[in-house]
Amino acid sequence: MLKIPKIPLIQSLNKQSQYLLAISGGADSVALLHLLKNSHQLILIHLNHQLRGKESGNDARFVRSLAKKLKLPCEIKKAPIAKIAKKQNISIEMTARQQRHLFFAEIAKKYKCPRILLAHHSDDNAETILWNLIRGSGGLKGISMKTQQNISGKKLTFLRPLIHTSRKEIMQFLEENQLSFRQDKTNSQPITPRNRIRNEVFPLLEKILGRNPRPAICRANEINQEKEKIVSHLLPFLVNPKETTLSVIKLKKQPLELQKVILHQWLKNQKISNISQALIHRCLKILDSTKIAKINLPKNRFLRRKSGELFLQ
Amino acid sequence: MLKIPKIPLIQSLNKQSQYLLAISGGADSVALLHLLKNSHQLILIHLNHQLRGKESGNDARFVRSLAKKLKLPCEIKKAPIAKIAKKQNISIEMTARQQRHLFFAEIAKKYKCPRILLAHHSDDNAETILWNLIRGSGGLKGISMKTQQNISGKKLTFLRPLIHTSRKEIMQFLEENQLSFRQDKTNSQPITPRNRIRNEVFPLLEKILGRNPRPAICRANEINQEKEKIVSHLLPFLVNPKETTLSVIKLKKQPLELQKVILHQWLKNQKISNISQALIHRCLKILDSTKIAKINLPKNRFLRRKSGELFLQ
Repeated sequence: MLKIPKIPLIQSLNKQSQYLLAISGGADSVALLHLLKNSHQLILIHLNHQLRGKESGNDARFVRSLAKKLKLPCEIKKAPIAKIAKKQNISIEMTARQQRHLFFAEIAKKYKCPRILLAHHSDDNAETILWNLIRGSGGLKGISMKTQQNISGKKLTFLRPLIHTSRKEIMQFLEENQLSFRQDKTNSQPITPRNRIRNEVFPLLEKILGRNPRPAICRANEINQEKEKIVSHLLPFLVNPKETTLSVIKLKKQPLELQKVILHQWLKNQKISNISQALIHRCLKILDSTKIAKINLPKNRFLRRKSGELFLQ
Repeated sequence: MLKIPKIPLIQSLNKQSQYLLAISGGADSVALLHLLKNSHQLILIHLNHQLRGKESGNDARFVRSLAKKLKLPCEIKKAPIAKIAKKQNISIEMTARQQRHLFFAEIAKKYKCPRILLAHHSDDNAETILWNLIRGSGGLKGISMKTQQNISGKKLTFLRPLIHTSRKEIMQFLEENQLSFRQDKTNSQPITPRNRIRNEVFPLLEKILGRNPRPAICRANEINQEKEKIVSHLLPFLVNPKETTLSVIKLKKQPLELQKVILHQWLKNQKISNISQALIHRCLKILDSTKIAKINLPKNRFLRRKSGELFLQ
């Protein structure tokens, strides 16, 4: 009998549905497999990135033999990531991600199964949040438990049952149950920013703080996500989707933060896409200046002011 | 003629008003003094923390001689921080902050001048944001350009004209103008978490990222502040302050995030204070369970459900 730690999403996965489980052979995805194998219908999927020579082949063989032992369907494919990256002139990481997604979509079609389980855990989440924060990808932004994405015309649902489970809990689970997994030695090398955030920054932060900083970081991200949802729920109260004009006086009565979101939402309602913060700032100028009565928008459209009303042309 | 970098708030400070300028003698506050001395009415205030022996006395003397040279009023006071901290059994940092605030309030009363200038800059802000994030102080939370606080019955306004200026820009300004300042050697020692965040974490992050991570962190904080303001502006649309009851059916129709903020705002409107996230979670249970019809609130009050309505007792 497996000793199973408390893992939130697992109960909410549907036992009648099939799932594709993306498995590298490493600790996290092997743990996810063992946690779900007795209760859920799984198809193991593994893309051999061919980036670590013999090791990559051994990972694929490990996954195949695990699937055989557990009597689970298994799909393995080779992708020469380094070669493709060079040809497309994009990074190894981007290429690997792109190729994984294409592989997922292919297998999803084959099995008519668009649900993909990924083994991201809460340490991955904290690292992603910090990395996105310092490189400036939209403030606080972590990994969600559930995301949806269109890939090759197929709508895929990605589910991450371990997102509230820590790396330590996963390792404990594997150890307590004496489960074997493959070790990717490059994870401990300072070859990617991500590895350095994990292996250098977090240990330093933990030492300075005197405790694990990850829960606070993940919690901050949750608070932020809630706030974003609140704003998106409340926006319809502010901007009637049927309004094709916007009253300058009414808009100017609102505090600046609201002026921005109202303008943004209204432009979106008028089918303007790619609305940047810079564009919003330019548009706001039309409110204060009587000299400016026209602002250029993307795709040859214009924001105009006439008789105290904003409208598009 | 001083070579002055572009510093946002300075224009918006009132040239007719007096300001208390809190000056340690270090680079930041000395730069702030020189940036404002020709255009604004300043009173220099310095609390000698007596934490660094002879050095502390030298800092105070440096400030006094600077004030004399610039013909500015100057108030200096000694506070035995270490002794007070020991007596009150609180940290040195907390005591220093408390004693500075008391000193500020005292001088604000004496000069009938509640406006205090502080020399925090954007590097301080980025460090504070990261530190608050990892120790879990409410998500993203930095230093504001303007804050107000009641101290000893006096409402003080703290203004930070350098909050959008970097440490590097400040040092450049001092160097270009050959302005002298005092150096606090303890700043470079790993004696406080704050020093270690500044001297160890940020250089590591900068190395990994390949560029300065501070602007992105400060920007994320600004985005977050805007979002918070949006939510607080929008809340009145959701909860009528006159409503003493809340319809369970209407509340349950809202998404969970909105249920939480509506409940929070409604409880606040009913004069419930210290509303924690945990309390909100407990209150939400009354919506789903027919068994629970009463929830304990602070100060001997109760949330009750009867005939599909929530009300307080």
